[in-house]
Amino acid sequence: MRLEGSQLRADGRDLVAVEEPLEIQIGYRDGVRRTRTLSITLRTPGHDRELAAGFAFAEGIVQTVAQISTILERRNKVRVELRSDVKVDWPALERHIVTNSSCGFCGKTCIDTAQQRVDPLADGPVIAAATLARLPQTLNAAQPAFELTGGLHAAALFRATGQLVSVYEDVGRHNALDKLVGAELLAGRLPLRESILLVSGRAGFELVLKALVAGIPIFAAIGAPTSLAVDLAREGGMTLAGFVRGGRFNLYSCPNRVGGGL
Amino acid sequence: MRLEGSQLRADGRDLVAVEEPLEIQIGYRDGVRRTRTLSITLRTPGHDRELAAGFAFAEGIVQTVAQISTILERRNKVRVELRSDVKVDWPALERHIVTNSSCGFCGKTCIDTAQQRVDPLADGPVIAAATLARLPQTLNAAQPAFELTGGLHAAALFRATGQLVSVYEDVGRHNALDKLVGAELLAGRLPLRESILLVSGRAGFELVLKALVAGIPIFAAIGAPTSLAVDLAREGGMTLAGFVRGGRFNLYSCPNRVGGGL
Repeated sequence: MRLEGSQLRADGRDLVAVEEPLEIQIGYRDGVRRTRTLSITLRTPGHDRELAAGFAFAEGIVQTVAQISTILERRNKVRVELRSDVKVDWPALERHIVTNSSCGFCGKTCIDTAQQRVDPLADGPVIAAATLARLPQTLNAAQPAFELTGGLHAAALFRATGQLVSVYEDVGRHNALDKLVGAELLAGRLPLRESILLVSGRAGFELVLKALVAGIPIFAAIGAPTSLAVDLAREGGMTLAGFVRGGRFNLYSCPNRVGGGL
Repeated sequence: MRLEGSQLRADGRDLVAVEEPLEIQIGYRDGVRRTRTLSITLRTPGHDRELAAGFAFAEGIVQTVAQISTILERRNKVRVELRSDVKVDWPALERHIVTNSSCGFCGKTCIDTAQQRVDPLADGPVIAAATLARLPQTLNAAQPAFELTGGLHAAALFRATGQLVSVYEDVGRHNALDKLVGAELLAGRLPLRESILLVSGRAGFELVLKALVAGIPIFAAIGAPTSLAVDLAREGGMTLAGFVRGGRFNLYSCPNRVGGGL
């Protein structure tokens, strides 16, 4: 039902983005075969293997596709099976999340914890300002159906030339990025040192961290960044652009990767 | 630094929304005094007491303000101290999150689990379609600074007449709603049976569940709803409106609370 002018009209065509839970499990060996639930996430079905692989990568459980023996799927459940020689440091993983409260707890702690996990980025590519400004149009031209429901976030990967490589959509912005990184992991193409990432929404700390872990040097957001995301991008040597829309953008860190050429 | 026309300009005025971690703890008695970390969330500082109280309410740890003895705050840490006679069923709380995987796991499970926690809403108010359509303008008129950084989500509470009661902002959409509900909890005004909620973003399952737990009968989102949010609103007897913008909206459930009067 929708309001049109001053009339309420019945309307059966209201499309909505699909959201369903997915349980992500890790299968590993610790003397015997074990299974552990890593996360239950609300996601848009599709590319569940990539989502699970990308999530496991972002959490530091796997670094390369060679560490994965297989990925098993059942409805709304997916299990990443590790090769038998892969060790998982579960206590360290939990420390990523629950910081020791006796040493204080602030944004600086988040940044420091993140820095222990990732190396600062190398110089990487220099891209034209016009290429950066044009990313949303490039994405729209390739994905005309994107705004059909208005309920999905997108994460898109581009070459430094501005050529679109891939795009993933999800009701959850983190899921869209996990799918993108997971696909690159499964194809053996990580780290993404020559790439540009575009996200449809805002740039928060966790998204920037996921991109840093994947080695992405240039992060572009159609929406705004947060303060902690800017701090992390600066410390990690990532170029962070926000409000990339209408042919404009703001740069918050490492502007040296964006040339003036238009 | 920003791109203006075809020029890259240095610009020190780029405002960003502040994002800092907050550790939410529960202090309770189980023979002896204990403290348990409930969540570490990335939030915009401010109204941390309300955020912690609202989160504890949404998780089912407290139902009324009388169950809280005090709320202690330190920098980026807040502890909700329960009265000594308040029992917390921690295993049941964990079951909210990790569903028994042997009984299958799908969106229906989420809906069923949610329904065990909340009673269906009573009839509640009937509001004018024009009141609903005008909520974003009412909010904008009251909060002219809202779009300053572009990085914040808002959750706003209105009376059935369309009068604005309160608005909370945060980098996290869930946090904004927890702050709003927490403030009402601390003021002894729950459940919110005669109220309208407006959120600046999309309507996902978890937001709709938080609103249901608070007894809110009408949920309006400037963005799109998800499929699971629509299912939950229907089952819970909540009126869910999406794309409330430009003087229009779509209704996804319980349209009986919206009158045709314009």
